[in-house]
Amino acid sequence: MDEGRTPPHPDLAQVGLQQVLEALVDPVRRGIVTQLATAGADIRCGDFDLPVSKSTATHHFKVLREAGVIRQYYVGTSRMNALRDTELDGAFPGLLAALVTAEAGAPATT
Amino acid sequence: MDEGRTPPHPDLAQVGLQQVLEALVDPVRRGIVTQLATAGADIRCGDFDLPVSKSTATHHFKVLREAGVIRQYYVGTSRMNALRDTELDGAFPGLLAALVTAEAGAPATT
Repeated sequence: MDEGRTPPHPDLAQVGLQQVLEALVDPVRRGIVTQLATAGADIRCGDFDLPVSKSTATHHFKVLREAGVIRQYYVGTSRMNALRDTELDGAFPGLLAALVTAEAGAPATT
Repeated sequence: MDEGRTPPHPDLAQVGLQQVLEALVDPVRRGIVTQLATAGADIRCGDFDLPVSKSTATHHFKVLREAGVIRQYYVGTSRMNALRDTELDGAFPGLLAALVTAEAGAPATT
């Protein structure tokens, strides 16, 4: 793991509800979050099931990272994604759980 | 109360998470929802504390109504607004409560 390549991550105390909601209003980004929550494990960027191109997916990962929703780190050449669920639930209690629950019951967005 | 003037309201079973989130991602609309939740009572359109013009506010009320978040009805010449909190919590458990809680702890959006 190369610390020098790890992108910056915000402190969740510095992220507002508005930024988190703008990240989560996008159905592709909610798909990323739901897949992380369902897997209960970190997922490589290339291993998500997403209906967009790789470059578009990279943009979505960046928006989620900058909103404090996911943490990204490298293992070798793989960029991994972790859901910051505990931190998010501390900053916005119940929000992530409500969205994941609603998404699980919603029709597919692809 | 004039039923003929009551605008149409969707069945929440027909409203998707995407439409509800697009309604609630706007800070003015979250302000309307938070004021209704805090008041615990229905509020006249003219009695909200909103940082926008009357015509812009009318648009925001319409978006919330069409997303199933509020119910609008007339009492005399006053258009009243009610939060569909029980129905929303049935369709998207915990979502409204999480947003109202987060909004209460967030800095003012005005």
